[in-house]
Amino acid sequence: MALIVQKYGGSSVADAAMIRNVAQRVAATKEGGHQVVVVVSAMGDTTDDLIRLAHQITDRPDEREMDLLLSTGETISITLLAMALRSLGQKAISLTGAQAGIQTDAAHSRARIQAVDPRRILRELRHGHIVIVAGFQGTTPGMDITTLGRGGSDTTAVALAAGLKAEKCEIYTDVEGVYTADPRLVPQARPIKKIHYEEMLELASRGAKVMHPRAVELGAVYNIPILVASSFSSAPGTLIYGGTLMEIRNKVTAIAHDPDVAKITVLGVPDRPGIAAAIFGPLAKAGMNVDCIVQNASIEKTTDLTFTVAQSDLEKAMTLVDPLAKEIGARGLVSDSQLAKVSIVGTGMQNAPGYAARMFQTLYEAGINIELITTSEIRITCIIARDKMELAVRSLHRAFELETAET
Amino acid sequence: MALIVQKYGGSSVADAAMIRNVAQRVAATKEGGHQVVVVVSAMGDTTDDLIRLAHQITDRPDEREMDLLLSTGETISITLLAMALRSLGQKAISLTGAQAGIQTDAAHSRARIQAVDPRRILRELRHGHIVIVAGFQGTTPGMDITTLGRGGSDTTAVALAAGLKAEKCEIYTDVEGVYTADPRLVPQARPIKKIHYEEMLELASRGAKVMHPRAVELGAVYNIPILVASSFSSAPGTLIYGGTLMEIRNKVTAIAHDPDVAKITVLGVPDRPGIAAAIFGPLAKAGMNVDCIVQNASIEKTTDLTFTVAQSDLEKAMTLVDPLAKEIGARGLVSDSQLAKVSIVGTGMQNAPGYAARMFQTLYEAGINIELITTSEIRITCIIARDKMELAVRSLHRAFELETAET
Repeated sequence: MALIVQKYGGSSVADAAMIRNVAQRVAATKEGGHQVVVVVSAMGDTTDDLIRLAHQITDRPDEREMDLLLSTGETISITLLAMALRSLGQKAISLTGAQAGIQTDAAHSRARIQAVDPRRILRELRHGHIVIVAGFQGTTPGMDITTLGRGGSDTTAVALAAGLKAEKCEIYTDVEGVYTADPRLVPQARPIKKIHYEEMLELASRGAKVMHPRAVELGAVYNIPILVASSFSSAPGTLIYGGTLMEIRNKVTAIAHDPDVAKITVLGVPDRPGIAAAIFGPLAKAGMNVDCIVQNASIEKTTDLTFTVAQSDLEKAMTLVDPLAKEIGARGLVSDSQLAKVSIVGTGMQNAPGYAARMFQTLYEAGINIELITTSEIRITCIIARDKMELAVRSLHRAFELETAET
Repeated sequence: MALIVQKYGGSSVADAAMIRNVAQRVAATKEGGHQVVVVVSAMGDTTDDLIRLAHQITDRPDEREMDLLLSTGETISITLLAMALRSLGQKAISLTGAQAGIQTDAAHSRARIQAVDPRRILRELRHGHIVIVAGFQGTTPGMDITTLGRGGSDTTAVALAAGLKAEKCEIYTDVEGVYTADPRLVPQARPIKKIHYEEMLELASRGAKVMHPRAVELGAVYNIPILVASSFSSAPGTLIYGGTLMEIRNKVTAIAHDPDVAKITVLGVPDRPGIAAAIFGPLAKAGMNVDCIVQNASIEKTTDLTFTVAQSDLEKAMTLVDPLAKEIGARGLVSDSQLAKVSIVGTGMQNAPGYAARMFQTLYEAGINIELITTSEIRITCIIARDKMELAVRSLHRAFELETAET
């Protein structure tokens, strides 16, 4: 008898009929002889509705109050799923984050899980219950309700799987797993059967929206196998797991993309120590995610410093950088807001320079200019014009034979 | 600096604009130099909406799950009121029933408050906060969420006032207080300025919907002065308080009525001990509220036993009583479902037989037949035909000069 943690997202429990569908699936798992803990998100648009309600009261809702308000969304879905399971004759009980022992810090709206006290859940499991836990929420040591921010319900599921020493964590969503590329861009994209945590992290942070990197990271730390699959079909889904070095296959697993990229170049930066800190310190303090950073040496004792930010951060970043650039004696500042990223992701890429060459050649043949290049051990990313992104993803998907390859 | 507990009902916080209105009133109380604890119900129809949602899942929702589901209604309103107060520049914090220390038994859907642990609220008050508490909900020693059933939010408010040793408890609602009669029946009805707990209890249980008797009882036990007033006006409202005997004024305070009355008569009951128990035991076990009971002796050794139940309980009561009547050798069973109660309520009535006479005379002059009569120390109730109820209430209100009298 294995213990399995399942998570169902908001689009899987959007109305009563869908909740009954989820109940059927959970019941089938239980009847398969397993102990089941189910993590549920808020129904469909509930969270957005609650946010709208708060904004009818005030433009700047307090974060503590907002957390308590938003926590009601998941509390509603867990009770309904428990009722649906009971009406199928199953023993089921719902627990809020606080009742389930999800203990967090007090950083409202973006709390981090500090510990999972598994006692209540284990007791309910011993009594033969299916235990349904509200995702996305927890409690501080002072008994205040927190929410975990983006990727919260996925994080709850993986944290519970770790805290309960579950055999695996199953994330059910509205897609059939992790694809070799976004199927909306590449009709030939296929679901990947198995993917390493590290590859998944590169995909997740590069714009694959299936699962939040935070939850994948947690899975990697505790070595929890995570299955991502559809709650609407019986397709096998994608297993995210911790592979050993022996399994490094030196191949491209998937193509990621991100259309939300803007570039800032500080021109004629004096080539002396401390410049990078002077520019990026204030940006980090303002909470801006600076991504690729490239510095081009030039003939005179100055360089050009280029970096990317999210498009929505561009204006604010320019306002921040402008006085800093003047202060350090830079020659000027230019920006481009119409960029995108495309990445190839796969283990062991760094040891196989052929992949980078094939990527650049593919983009060249498609007539796509590369603005910047960054790499990690398992990823090569090119910054290109946004209007070429779709073409780039399709060309790379074909060039690396992802339409046909078995993963 | 006094500590005041205020309670605002669902119709006072039905939308964002009304919540802002309540925030203004609460802020004004705070600025009057008081410490304020506010108890709030769920917004408008929220509770009904949640019940509907549960019934989309199953016809028979589990009570524990239902309690957790319904508790979200009040949790939403407390956070919105806290946000509204903060946007007025007030320090405010919302607390769920569990956070506020409302400890109950585990009788889901109808839990009784067992204790109030005031530590968290007192700490927040010391920090200068207005404390907003979710009404209608509490927590068991095992950390499960309960709801208090009917009159729950009023009960929360009075219990907090008792537990915090507040100076008074103010119940804000959509009427201007307790009236001498239902203003929909008697346009001349006036708000009563002061009323004893006991009088209010008679009114509340006899069909005056302003405040639930359970909360009034709690106020009487802990001697908490309760002000019932409108959240939409500045009318003074009605003070419910504990008077001394010296204040007994031997007068009628108000006319109550209840259109939901049915009567059952067991004919030809043998006149021997144990008969009443044989009939009323099973009815009580079935949770039926038997109200007036009258037994008429007759010439032969048999009596007729008449009692009233709520109209909605009539069919079930008849089904229960029919075999019992046969068993005890009664001659037959008749019922009348078209009845109503009218009552005059006032302290010291029992010592002033003139009031009963005036009531009967008034009904006689209005051509109204009296089916049954019951009395308590501070109330005389007549059961009459339902289609005469309105006429009876109007006639009595005039006969006891409630249009003009100062209470």
